[in-house]
Amino acid sequence: MANKIGFMHPAFAALMKGAAGSFEAVSRGDYESDAAMAAAHPDLRALVVMGGGKMGAAEIDTFPYLGLIACFGVGYDGLDVAHANAKGITCTNCPNTNNEDVADHAVGIFIALLRDIVRGHARVVGPDWSQGERGRLGPSLWQLKAGIVGMGAIGQSIAKRLPAFGIPVSWWGPNAKPDLPYPRATSVLQLAKDNDVLFMAGRADENSRGIISTEVIEAVGPRGYIVNISRGFTVDEDALIAALKAGRLAGAALDVFWEEPTPAARWADVPNVVLTPHVGGGGRGAIEKQAKLVMENLSLFFAGQPLKTPIAA
Amino acid sequence: MANKIGFMHPAFAALMKGAAGSFEAVSRGDYESDAAMAAAHPDLRALVVMGGGKMGAAEIDTFPYLGLIACFGVGYDGLDVAHANAKGITCTNCPNTNNEDVADHAVGIFIALLRDIVRGHARVVGPDWSQGERGRLGPSLWQLKAGIVGMGAIGQSIAKRLPAFGIPVSWWGPNAKPDLPYPRATSVLQLAKDNDVLFMAGRADENSRGIISTEVIEAVGPRGYIVNISRGFTVDEDALIAALKAGRLAGAALDVFWEEPTPAARWADVPNVVLTPHVGGGGRGAIEKQAKLVMENLSLFFAGQPLKTPIAA
Repeated sequence: MANKIGFMHPAFAALMKGAAGSFEAVSRGDYESDAAMAAAHPDLRALVVMGGGKMGAAEIDTFPYLGLIACFGVGYDGLDVAHANAKGITCTNCPNTNNEDVADHAVGIFIALLRDIVRGHARVVGPDWSQGERGRLGPSLWQLKAGIVGMGAIGQSIAKRLPAFGIPVSWWGPNAKPDLPYPRATSVLQLAKDNDVLFMAGRADENSRGIISTEVIEAVGPRGYIVNISRGFTVDEDALIAALKAGRLAGAALDVFWEEPTPAARWADVPNVVLTPHVGGGGRGAIEKQAKLVMENLSLFFAGQPLKTPIAA
Repeated sequence: MANKIGFMHPAFAALMKGAAGSFEAVSRGDYESDAAMAAAHPDLRALVVMGGGKMGAAEIDTFPYLGLIACFGVGYDGLDVAHANAKGITCTNCPNTNNEDVADHAVGIFIALLRDIVRGHARVVGPDWSQGERGRLGPSLWQLKAGIVGMGAIGQSIAKRLPAFGIPVSWWGPNAKPDLPYPRATSVLQLAKDNDVLFMAGRADENSRGIISTEVIEAVGPRGYIVNISRGFTVDEDALIAALKAGRLAGAALDVFWEEPTPAARWADVPNVVLTPHVGGGGRGAIEKQAKLVMENLSLFFAGQPLKTPIAA
């Protein structure tokens, strides 16, 4: 059986071109559907997928000879790992490869929000600078306190950056981490009450679905800010939009959304937001780390050896 | 003689409303010209001015009874301090009040440039996210090294932030500062050659005019970035624009310009820039610190006591 790999996103093949020769690459973009791809290549043994894209039981069952599903990226909320594992398919992801990049992006969209950088740029390149006021004057960063929801690799990378700006950090997560130097709040709600900006950095799973609830958003309040670089479904997006429109939340910086692409019309009348199209993960350096790790896992898989970063349901 | 103060910018009076009662405020915005203001109030003894705005010999001489010119802000490159001092007029500024805010802004526009945040926002709120590619993929921050030109309060505040992003710092300035933990390059040119991103943070005076020259810009090079939060005249802006258009510089993030407002048309075809309308200085916290310090200097002046932060030519 050939060492055939199915690349489910058009970017992957290019990113792993260093592997040409060792494997036969099949690109999903060349086919109308998963089924057409599987029909043309029934002997596909490994897929490289986006961890956030849907890869449920039906999608997995489309490919009869799979032994490996490798997620390019850290999250794998779109993948039915339990179903895959039950069929003897190993799943892998790329843990700890992009936490620095995601933290950079989180801090970047946070400062862009506070310092009105998106509108500032529009003023300079448009006709507005010469006309009237300089725009809203937000608080200085050093006047704010930050709460981080979720203190995994990404949360800790955010926490490492904020004190350099004079911003003290506290956090909440489901598990106590006594080795961390930051105080842990008793709940997400308490964290929201005690701080000016809430960074959602936690693992995105059923336990964190909607964790940034109406109540939490109201606790962040009219002088507070929310930054989300996790997954859109961790925030009650309808409540967030309503709070922003009513001035019950000062601002939000979001890289992730309920639906992606999010409908542009949904954000047309929403003030005080900085929105980016789910690009927090890279940084060329992070993408290079992930390409390397995916390749290592593929090589180990085809060599019949234990994988480097397997995930279990 | 009344304790009359002339506020030369419309925002100042509001910022110092706490002083109502102690002084009589005269607003420049209520008059056609400096001369009309001086004619209506020949007994003006103090002016509060923007340090970057022109206050040369002619402007100073318009007001016959001046004893104090207080610059709201840190820079005072628009003020002819020598002429004022020769006439017995004391000048003050607000040193070390906004270095944290300016450094926040410098890092913010730098990340916005690297992570394509301005265009990302436009993609989300426009029709573009669903169409085609995710945009350019720049380097990760941790893959870069930074050189800081000028290691005063602002340079040091930038230097404090960058290591939290995994970015090593070196610097150049005219005076050795052996207590600093960062290596000093032998020249601006060497600093540009040795690093990926150059932060212009030095004092803006005749010694630093055009210090970011064509040669320095070319040394930063096609994979390098320039950030300027000092004054526009420290950079050869024509050379910068030419280098960006030709791909000989990867990107630039600028809060300051040769001319302010800078003509929008000048930037219409310039790729890979983030431009903000000279807002680096605040942050409400910085503006509050400056308003307080200006008020203290005014009070001391009218009480005939030595001023807190005098400047000399």
